[in-house]
Amino acid sequence: MVTEQLAGGDLSRLRQLNALAVVHVLRGRPALTLTELSRDTGLSRPSTEDVVLQLQNQGWLEEVQPASGGMGRPARRYRFRSDAGWVLGVDIGGHTIRVLAADLDGEVRHTVRTPVAITAGRAERLGAVDAAVAECLAAAGLTGADIWATTVGTSGLVDAAGRVVLSVAFPEWTGVHLAQHVGRLVGGTVLVENDSRLAALAETWRGVARYAQHVVYLLAGLRTGTGLIIDGKLHRGFAQAAGEIGALPELGWIRAQEHLRSWTGAPAGTDPDDLAGYVFASAREGDRKAVAVVRRYAKELALGASALVLALDPQLVVLGGGFSRSADVLLDPLRREIEKRCVRIPEILTSTLGDESVALGAVKLSLEHLQEHLFDVRTGVAAPLRPAR
Amino acid sequence: MVTEQLAGGDLSRLRQLNALAVVHVLRGRPALTLTELSRDTGLSRPSTEDVVLQLQNQGWLEEVQPASGGMGRPARRYRFRSDAGWVLGVDIGGHTIRVLAADLDGEVRHTVRTPVAITAGRAERLGAVDAAVAECLAAAGLTGADIWATTVGTSGLVDAAGRVVLSVAFPEWTGVHLAQHVGRLVGGTVLVENDSRLAALAETWRGVARYAQHVVYLLAGLRTGTGLIIDGKLHRGFAQAAGEIGALPELGWIRAQEHLRSWTGAPAGTDPDDLAGYVFASAREGDRKAVAVVRRYAKELALGASALVLALDPQLVVLGGGFSRSADVLLDPLRREIEKRCVRIPEILTSTLGDESVALGAVKLSLEHLQEHLFDVRTGVAAPLRPAR
Repeated sequence: MVTEQLAGGDLSRLRQLNALAVVHVLRGRPALTLTELSRDTGLSRPSTEDVVLQLQNQGWLEEVQPASGGMGRPARRYRFRSDAGWVLGVDIGGHTIRVLAADLDGEVRHTVRTPVAITAGRAERLGAVDAAVAECLAAAGLTGADIWATTVGTSGLVDAAGRVVLSVAFPEWTGVHLAQHVGRLVGGTVLVENDSRLAALAETWRGVARYAQHVVYLLAGLRTGTGLIIDGKLHRGFAQAAGEIGALPELGWIRAQEHLRSWTGAPAGTDPDDLAGYVFASAREGDRKAVAVVRRYAKELALGASALVLALDPQLVVLGGGFSRSADVLLDPLRREIEKRCVRIPEILTSTLGDESVALGAVKLSLEHLQEHLFDVRTGVAAPLRPAR
Repeated sequence: MVTEQLAGGDLSRLRQLNALAVVHVLRGRPALTLTELSRDTGLSRPSTEDVVLQLQNQGWLEEVQPASGGMGRPARRYRFRSDAGWVLGVDIGGHTIRVLAADLDGEVRHTVRTPVAITAGRAERLGAVDAAVAECLAAAGLTGADIWATTVGTSGLVDAAGRVVLSVAFPEWTGVHLAQHVGRLVGGTVLVENDSRLAALAETWRGVARYAQHVVYLLAGLRTGTGLIIDGKLHRGFAQAAGEIGALPELGWIRAQEHLRSWTGAPAGTDPDDLAGYVFASAREGDRKAVAVVRRYAKELALGASALVLALDPQLVVLGGGFSRSADVLLDPLRREIEKRCVRIPEILTSTLGDESVALGAVKLSLEHLQEHLFDVRTGVAAPLRPAR
């Protein structure tokens, strides 16, 4: 059936599949000879040569110069040009805008961090985004047209068009059309996604969740949020509104912060946002009252986490967000409170990605978008649509 | 690439794929001629004849006798023999054991219901299962060897081997190895699955959730449970323990029953299990106290439901289980309580499958198993492994 359909079918599609096979074999690997490429793709030698020439002309492959000094003429070797295209990952945080520029292999080549006031309104925050993107492009020697896909991470609920439909974290943020705004600055597709979800995605890509197919990621910081990985995929829900368990008062996430903010052991005049750091520091030094406050915070965090664990039975819970830096005093009480409530206890690990996790997840989502639209044999359009640089 | 691999590849696999293509085209449709089969499969006429003859010899297809009286010799027509194999769906309930026998098209041909005491111990309940399966086989004129796949639904947590690892609903039920027990009675694979999950699956197959990819199913009855459909698939979790949100006291499902059991408006000596019926009946008649009790029950049910809705953002919530028969008084308060708590409100519908939903979901899971292992072009082994009857 398959043979007959193809024989009577679309030969240019066959050429695309062959091109994708060569790209697939070469990506993320050292340069290969035509003989090696023919072996690994299952293509005949003439087909391999044909496809390699096509991909070279399109800018996807380049010939690697052989080391001199060998005997005879060495076989020509080809590598995938991971810098044929670029993606951006943008994290619009409360205090910082982060922009990462990465190549097609996902290697982050440039990072820009721009401070922004937590009180900044919409125009000021968007201005900081513009400046950070421009600075990152300049540092990489790129223009916006060189960017093939960009993902923007933001707090709040985002609709499928890339608009923030509900945000309480930043002033004047509900309603901002981030896809449109950032689309003015860069070429290609602009995706917008909730920051907790991107952080969860980053953990499955480069973090502690690489091995797991079912993950509950906890963003524990000045805000509390979650990102869910189900069956290896980011779970968004029917209308992109999944992961909003914090809205249920009975599950404690609304109250959680209050315990930390009630701390009176910090210097007078300390910003309420900074009290958490003092609590964790005092708990680390063994202060009994601070330990008790951390325990109360952990209990509220564990309530929502336990609801997610009981509902989904994940393999792994990841403690991320700013407070994960204090996992030395937070993780044990959190684990105990989850163990009290759950039927099956998942592994509970601390994120090691630090503050970069949202931006890194944004890079990953951009790459997944390209993978699906350019490189996947089922849906990809392969090389021909992309001009050589 | 595909062409070259197949040409040098496994011809018997190609024959399998062709056989699967013919079976795929014929299943669930009226009889087709060779010309129609050739057109719909994309196979050549000689290949089609070849495959049809093979499938006919194996008992998968049969020739349909043409209506007499036409002019000339009518073209031969073939149909898929949906009775070439059988599946069972078994529901081990508190008061009733249900067994459904269905053909390969999922048409339920025989139904058996056997009463069992809620207080029955392990041996007595398993004895009732044995009797119900035997009665169903006899009614269908089958032996256990005719059954290709069986799914058993039970309350409680079930492990991958088909053992109940935790059950509080029935006496002596934790630890029972249902796959092994039922495997003595029937041929083929025996799957064991949580009953709420099977009821959820039934809703996506033949119930109100047919159109939805993300569904929270609520089993509301003497027990409260849930089955989750995520991305069109039954969600089991990493260790089959998903859906146990009822274990969290803050989410109300443990307390929910108490409101109904506190009802004093029933005749003296009424079994506590039957009080719910009296409450719903009184509420239906406008009794204010009964309406208030239903509202309190609905609020507790809504707490857990809201946690699931907020976490997963389903398209649809289905109210099922025994209490769904009282949806006329229960659905409105439930909807109001969910609307109070959730960010995005899903559709909320009442199950129309009645008491048969678990057994029907069990039939569906059996069919899915056969689909995957016999009929799927990626994983199926196709016809040759199954003997003709």
